[in-house]
Amino acid sequence: MDFDALFNAQLDQLKSDGNYRYFAELERKCGKFPRAANHDENGVRDVTVWCSNDYLGMGQHPKVIAAMCEAVERTGTGAGGTRNISGTNHDHLLLEQELADLHGKEAALLFTSGYVSNWAALSTLGSRLKDCVILSDAGNHASMIEGIRHSKATKVIWKHNDAHDLEMKLRALPRDVPKIVAFESVYSMDGDIAPIREIVDVAEKYGAMTYLDEVHAVGMYGPRGGGVAEREGLSDRITLIEGTLGKAYGVVGGYITGSPALCDFIRSFASGFIFTTALPPAIAAAARTSIAYLKTSQIERAAQKRQVARLRAALDREGIPHMVNESHIIPVMIGDPVKTRMLADYLMQEWDIYVQPINYPTVPKGTERLRFTPSPLHSDADIDHLVNALSVLWRQCALARAVA
Amino acid sequence: MDFDALFNAQLDQLKSDGNYRYFAELERKCGKFPRAANHDENGVRDVTVWCSNDYLGMGQHPKVIAAMCEAVERTGTGAGGTRNISGTNHDHLLLEQELADLHGKEAALLFTSGYVSNWAALSTLGSRLKDCVILSDAGNHASMIEGIRHSKATKVIWKHNDAHDLEMKLRALPRDVPKIVAFESVYSMDGDIAPIREIVDVAEKYGAMTYLDEVHAVGMYGPRGGGVAEREGLSDRITLIEGTLGKAYGVVGGYITGSPALCDFIRSFASGFIFTTALPPAIAAAARTSIAYLKTSQIERAAQKRQVARLRAALDREGIPHMVNESHIIPVMIGDPVKTRMLADYLMQEWDIYVQPINYPTVPKGTERLRFTPSPLHSDADIDHLVNALSVLWRQCALARAVA
Ligand SMILES: Cc1ncc(COP(=O)(O)O)c(C=O)c1O
Ligand SMILES: Cc1ncc(COP(=O)(O)O)c(C=O)c1O
Repeated sequence: MDFDALFNAQLDQLKSDGNYRYFAELERKCGKFPRAANHDENGVRDVTVWCSNDYLGMGQHPKVIAAMCEAVERTGTGAGGTRNISGTNHDHLLLEQELADLHGKEAALLFTSGYVSNWAALSTLGSRLKDCVILSDAGNHASMIEGIRHSKATKVIWKHNDAHDLEMKLRALPRDVPKIVAFESVYSMDGDIAPIREIVDVAEKYGAMTYLDEVHAVGMYGPRGGGVAEREGLSDRITLIEGTLGKAYGVVGGYITGSPALCDFIRSFASGFIFTTALPPAIAAAARTSIAYLKTSQIERAAQKRQVARLRAALDREGIPHMVNESHIIPVMIGDPVKTRMLADYLMQEWDIYVQPINYPTVPKGTERLRFTPSPLHSDADIDHLVNALSVLWRQCALARAVA
Repeated sequence: MDFDALFNAQLDQLKSDGNYRYFAELERKCGKFPRAANHDENGVRDVTVWCSNDYLGMGQHPKVIAAMCEAVERTGTGAGGTRNISGTNHDHLLLEQELADLHGKEAALLFTSGYVSNWAALSTLGSRLKDCVILSDAGNHASMIEGIRHSKATKVIWKHNDAHDLEMKLRALPRDVPKIVAFESVYSMDGDIAPIREIVDVAEKYGAMTYLDEVHAVGMYGPRGGGVAEREGLSDRITLIEGTLGKAYGVVGGYITGSPALCDFIRSFASGFIFTTALPPAIAAAARTSIAYLKTSQIERAAQKRQVARLRAALDREGIPHMVNESHIIPVMIGDPVKTRMLADYLMQEWDIYVQPINYPTVPKGTERLRFTPSPLHSDADIDHLVNALSVLWRQCALARAVA
């Protein structure tokens, strides 16, 4: 059987739909972020990265760099085993304590990524709690969707960010089955924020456990970076808070926090936690340094807010339409995969601006977009340059401008 | 609803079965492997680690350490995005080239772990190839099992390492459906090695694609560390070779290699590849250095073989039964979770020897064991000390000795 032909047929379909993905090949340069070298067929050239999820530039923070190198030299480059079989290191436990403290919980559990933490935790909860029903926000991330699917638990989807719809769905369920309400705080592609208080009120009323993904909020929201739940003073009412170490914290890895029994349960039964090599202790050490730093430093969060507001205002001035939201994420909707890619290609080639076209399956078809994430390290001049470029492009391409 | 009570009930069951897991808390010490500090209620004490999957000690190799620190200082601590959205770095592509070359393939694709590479590749192949049937060796790893399950493809289990049974199963299937034969080279818990040639012969006869997990073989088998398939000269007859960067290579991460169409297919459709932060470029740089080093250096492999043979001979002399196999893995069967833990506790407390008790679900119930993995860095004195300890314990505990 010609397997390559089967693969190529599906790839050709992607290409003809305009959904085939070309990855930009970057070279991050420590100390230069948001500048990076871009490799393409024309050679290597410095560009400004406008779509990174190293939201605060912590990936190049001197303290985080130093912590990682120190730990590599102290412990080596890997953990050497799964958590159970020789892979648990002192640095992992220190990080887990730091994470529990971050969210005001008693326990935390580290995973190789945020994806794996969602997938492993939800698939374990859904499959091991008898008759469990998982109520999932319609906008939830792929990692949660796959975890729920893998659990084979009954899944009920409620309207995105709609606590009233959630209540309707909860009310219809039998009183005595375990229920999990799964949602995110900041949704990464639209940048909108969940009405956490309303959701928690409803969940508590029906005795449901709450599962909150704060992946796009940790480090950035709340006085200590504990996420939107911390900012709203709601952390102690959420059963499980999940997060990543790979975005605002600038490293890699994922985690859950909650009660000791909850974390021990996932630790003991989750295939995705058990059967995999632990993260290098040096990764844990770097992440812990980043978290501890952002627990007290407000400079990065303040500067990020400032630059986000500045980019929004400049886009408004030029009449470039962008989605309104209360987060740090600025989506500019294009609505067509080919046009989105064309714009991104022009920005890269003519303006040394890198913003990845966002297409299906990351966003629904027809909502293709450019998604800008201003960091504390994007200068005012960077913003002016970006908005100038977009403005010229908007004219050239004769795209409709928003009515002022 | 009292969720903690639900969790605790299942944890209590684990405890009363003797299957609850206590993780040893180690501090790896670069340059001292296999020595590490063990933290427990009595304080901190140096022990010899006998169950690490840092099989060759590459996690403390000066070149690998240097590569990682150099890259952290050059690129920072994280990738800053998913592979599609600003996360692809030059170091990732260099590593993928190194991996393709390692297995004599045209392409490779990097994942956050070996677990994720198996889960993502098999779930994507199984779900996107219409009417696909996956023929899975009965001993396959959890990550493959979960990937196959997630794909919802038809699954046929064949008897462990039995090419004849595989042929019976293949013969029974319709000629024209896509078939994937999934298996491992070195099985990590019994240490036995698959009859790859026979399996490939059968698979080719029935037009099936072959999927080979070389996680416990890469770096250690074959003249360049390309695994058992390389040693047998069979790499080019395997459709997809999967491996890890977290065991013999001493870092973290996983990968697949195969044709460009195959890798592009997984790259384009696998949720577990798409929706997750890329590995830090520094991890990629460290792994590449380790792979390149082991492509030429034979010292580590030779010394490992020597120490494995030495430990086996010493166990035989003392009449301590161990499973016979042709790999570097030496399982000593105990067959009861409580006894296995008791032995491991004595070894740690009385002899400063750390070997994790291996229990369900890592091995079937009733086959609990101690699993020793001699490395090139375990000295002859380490081996004598271990065998002496085991010998004393065997007497004390009045465990049956093998007939000489
Ligand atoms: C909402 C959400 N949850 C989880 C993840 C996965 O986290 P990680 O990148 O650490 O795997 C992502 C994105 O990557 C995400 O957007
Ligand atoms: C056979 C096999 N495949 C895959 C994996 C997963 O690899 P990783 O540890 O890189 O996640 C393991 C063990 O961890 C394994 O034993």
